[in-house]
Amino acid sequence: MSEAGAQALGIPSLRWAEPPEGPVVVLLDQTRLPAEEAELVCTDVPALVQAIRTLAVRGAPLLGIAGAYGVALAAARGFDVDEAVEILAHARPTAVNLGYGVRRAAAAYREAAGRGGGPEAAAAAALAEARAVHAEDIEASARMADHGLALLGELLPGGGHRLLTHCNTGHLVSGGEGTALAVARAAHRAGELRRLWVDETRPLLQGARLTAYEAARAGMAYSVLADGAAGSLFAAGEVDAVLIGADRIAADGSVANKVGSYPLAVLARYHHVPFVVVAPTTTVDFETEEGADIEVEQRPGSEVTEFSLPYGQGPGEGSGVGVAVAPVGAQAYNPAFDVTPPELVTAIVTEAGVVSPVTREGLVRVCSTSRWSKSRSGNGMMAE
Amino acid sequence: MSEAGAQALGIPSLRWAEPPEGPVVVLLDQTRLPAEEAELVCTDVPALVQAIRTLAVRGAPLLGIAGAYGVALAAARGFDVDEAVEILAHARPTAVNLGYGVRRAAAAYREAAGRGGGPEAAAAAALAEARAVHAEDIEASARMADHGLALLGELLPGGGHRLLTHCNTGHLVSGGEGTALAVARAAHRAGELRRLWVDETRPLLQGARLTAYEAARAGMAYSVLADGAAGSLFAAGEVDAVLIGADRIAADGSVANKVGSYPLAVLARYHHVPFVVVAPTTTVDFETEEGADIEVEQRPGSEVTEFSLPYGQGPGEGSGVGVAVAPVGAQAYNPAFDVTPPELVTAIVTEAGVVSPVTREGLVRVCSTSRWSKSRSGNGMMAE
Repeated sequence: MSEAGAQALGIPSLRWAEPPEGPVVVLLDQTRLPAEEAELVCTDVPALVQAIRTLAVRGAPLLGIAGAYGVALAAARGFDVDEAVEILAHARPTAVNLGYGVRRAAAAYREAAGRGGGPEAAAAAALAEARAVHAEDIEASARMADHGLALLGELLPGGGHRLLTHCNTGHLVSGGEGTALAVARAAHRAGELRRLWVDETRPLLQGARLTAYEAARAGMAYSVLADGAAGSLFAAGEVDAVLIGADRIAADGSVANKVGSYPLAVLARYHHVPFVVVAPTTTVDFETEEGADIEVEQRPGSEVTEFSLPYGQGPGEGSGVGVAVAPVGAQAYNPAFDVTPPELVTAIVTEAGVVSPVTREGLVRVCSTSRWSKSRSGNGMMAE
Repeated sequence: MSEAGAQALGIPSLRWAEPPEGPVVVLLDQTRLPAEEAELVCTDVPALVQAIRTLAVRGAPLLGIAGAYGVALAAARGFDVDEAVEILAHARPTAVNLGYGVRRAAAAYREAAGRGGGPEAAAAAALAEARAVHAEDIEASARMADHGLALLGELLPGGGHRLLTHCNTGHLVSGGEGTALAVARAAHRAGELRRLWVDETRPLLQGARLTAYEAARAGMAYSVLADGAAGSLFAAGEVDAVLIGADRIAADGSVANKVGSYPLAVLARYHHVPFVVVAPTTTVDFETEEGADIEVEQRPGSEVTEFSLPYGQGPGEGSGVGVAVAPVGAQAYNPAFDVTPPELVTAIVTEAGVVSPVTREGLVRVCSTSRWSKSRSGNGMMAE
């Protein structure tokens, strides 16, 4: 992406900085959007882990980048790198990219340390690897957008797409334009986006807060809706395709993504509408055999039973003030993700090409031919 | 229902009162629940219409009662009854019961006026008819609970039901225990309710705010969930049946109900789980031929793009303070209802018996044999 391109996307969702006081990881605090564009400065790994847990930084690809920079931060500041690796990798259980980024930076650190170059050289190696993870993600975003746009052209030859998306999968989850939302942006640039339907995405409203913010900045025609209203759009024939991201894809093609994705997949199937997952190959976890093996993070019930006021808008001050919306003591069921089986997924779009139909063999092929190889050549639909 | 029974349900959701200043309709203000149990006193029809539009009073059966008392109020206070009928009947477009209650009280008023008894006799006739609508609703609730419990016993012979419900269909929508929630209460009393899954029901959170409030008061085991999390429960086999109410049922058995009901019907079908609608026969509208003919109310987008703080919890004071959750200027799609076609509905439970499978003929039979006849004899499943 050009510098001008990056500029148009606004404040970077994550950046490395080296002020005189020492290196830091600077995050765009996503819990304060869209009301406020505020940066959060992490000077150590616990602060970064806290930011990951509270979703100040979130989204599969960006978590990979954050994990890698977290290791680089621990190394640069002389903290215990093994301990940093441990707590970063387990900050959130479902996102596979987090562990991926952490492992890559840690491997680079250990390799450099093993070569006997001393702590500074090892820290520099970790940082270089984090920067590589970051750069690769930017490139992957652009490729996913290209492949996704081509796929939409094949699936929906009439053009004028009305796309439904869930959660946030754009610039805010990525060094580049993101995953599913990058495809919608590409359709918008190509004059092929009639409307973006934005599921508000309860409980944390990443759709209403973040995707709508990105769509508005990009000048897209969009409408926010309560998650339950998606059914009415399908029934009225107002959805041409569903585009979502993924937090983890099992070896069989089962897709873990933000809770509420699976009902969309069932609705899409019932209405014969394509259901397309857009995610980098780093999201595919061949060590997880199938959907049932994916550990789904259960988050606090208070995310459902309380409404968390945006920063500065509470009765007191500060963010995260909760207003009760259910009776005191109400129990809640609050899984962060759900799992969509491969038979409900029309296609998985990666930076290395498209897997459709979704099979283990297709995933193996697209991942093995292309994972972070400098000479990737995936282009368009992979025939199975 | 006995007085003790009514007592256990708490403050009446609606009552007629005659203080020295003149007759009034007193509502439990549902916009303030569960934080506060406050009554709203309506001294004229515009105040009642405002309460209907803002959902201070809501729910199909209760709207019928409110409409009837509204006509009685206009008559008792010497207002223009024809005008009251007109504005009450159109306060909300989808709820057929509202018009039903209005028409019954208006017919009684006109009949008495036609007999030449003078305005006082006509007003008394309207009030007597409103009281009859109210009493019939209480009786209908109890019968729906009986029929519904018997149906659950047939559909789910193992007992220990885990029931998923959407929106609020209990005491708060009825003179009695309500519709779908009345069946869940009956299962609870019979020791047959393992868990009530309560969809929070965006955008106005009637599930989290109202159904959870009723479930907690009744001592039921319940959990609130984001609407999008229902899919995970189905996938995990944690839902034995879905129980919902209805705002209007077309002649072909299409069911208009709170937005988010249709996705549950599709999920239920995909997972082979019964989808049961509980509604009095007054909800069936034979003048509406099929689902496509049902006018669906479109409500303000701000219900989605802003979070309305409960009374007294806003940055200022008073209820209805909106906190923006989407960017300024965000457009929203906000239908109040959706329509579930009869082929996705396992059964419709009425006070006069159960229609299953759902067909026009079944609806005609159950409605014609029983509508407000004093000698109803519907009992259990109607074989088709």
